[in-house]
Amino acid sequence: MKKQIRILGIDDSPFTFNDKYCTVIGAVMRGGEYLECILSDRIAIDGSESTHICKKMIQNTKYREQLKVIMLDGVALGGFNIVNIHELYESTNLPIITITRDKPDFDKIKLALQKNFNDWEERWRILKRGEMHTIKTHHNPIYVKCVGIAIESAKEIINLSTIRGVIPEPIRVAHIIASGITRGESYGKA
Amino acid sequence: MKKQIRILGIDDSPFTFNDKYCTVIGAVMRGGEYLECILSDRIAIDGSESTHICKKMIQNTKYREQLKVIMLDGVALGGFNIVNIHELYESTNLPIITITRDKPDFDKIKLALQKNFNDWEERWRILKRGEMHTIKTHHNPIYVKCVGIAIESAKEIINLSTIRGVIPEPIRVAHIIASGITRGESYGKA
Repeated sequence: MKKQIRILGIDDSPFTFNDKYCTVIGAVMRGGEYLECILSDRIAIDGSESTHICKKMIQNTKYREQLKVIMLDGVALGGFNIVNIHELYESTNLPIITITRDKPDFDKIKLALQKNFNDWEERWRILKRGEMHTIKTHHNPIYVKCVGIAIESAKEIINLSTIRGVIPEPIRVAHIIASGITRGESYGKA
Repeated sequence: MKKQIRILGIDDSPFTFNDKYCTVIGAVMRGGEYLECILSDRIAIDGSESTHICKKMIQNTKYREQLKVIMLDGVALGGFNIVNIHELYESTNLPIITITRDKPDFDKIKLALQKNFNDWEERWRILKRGEMHTIKTHHNPIYVKCVGIAIESAKEIINLSTIRGVIPEPIRVAHIIASGITRGESYGKA
């Protein structure tokens, strides 16, 4: 695997209950080392267009042809605006890797979906699709899904793009920017 | 000089004639390699508070004690909102380095100030204060001012924090973010 492989990492900004929208940041990096481009858009909190927004980001960037893989901080942006990673893979022909630091509590998520959405079954179906892998690290484990790429290759890409801690730079950088521009100073971990 | 010295790079977002404000982005990096934190604020186009905004950014960040030097993309943010780099140095006790890729056309700047500002003499005085150094690179030269630090040390910091091209990472990254969040995709060079 080339160390300078081009990766787009996507994360959303923090939001409050009063917000209707939040910002989505895409960070195009060469491996884990060099930031080449920042993309931004907004999505509706708990809306249904996050797959479309990610697709648009990927298709419109001048780095489209160089991108080799997409990384998402989990499978949802803006609350429960679930990204259909299978659809995203099929329409862009780029492997998708989702990474989370915290193990999702699926019982809690299902209850929240049932409580708040008429189309909860559809959201639940999209969110649950695909195997969740637990990947050991020298810190805590991370939880990974991948589409269009074998888990062994996904691990290799995660490793080559992680500098400190356990989160690959494209997601970490997207997170820092999304929180920094929203709150005045970035905080927390992707 | 420590290679991982903590630098805050500051740049402003692009704006149009209709805008009253633009965004100011601060990128805290370790040398030219690792992005640690993003700061953001806004300033009035052609306003007078850019020195205050920079000061606030520096004083309020959790990285305040670790910062060793401040880098600015030129001496103005948001049009002619001139940063008083001497005042900024005195109030923060941190060396300030300004860097531009294009040689400032001082005749043109002076005319624009005279035409648009009642307080043009004050802005001109702040803008002109301090020696402008032309620094040769393996590409085109860059134009540098520094306060609170000798030009030789400033050059060393510029070198250790530049990865590609001639612009140090903290300024380049701040520029990419400021333009990316404003225009949807970052463009151009700091």
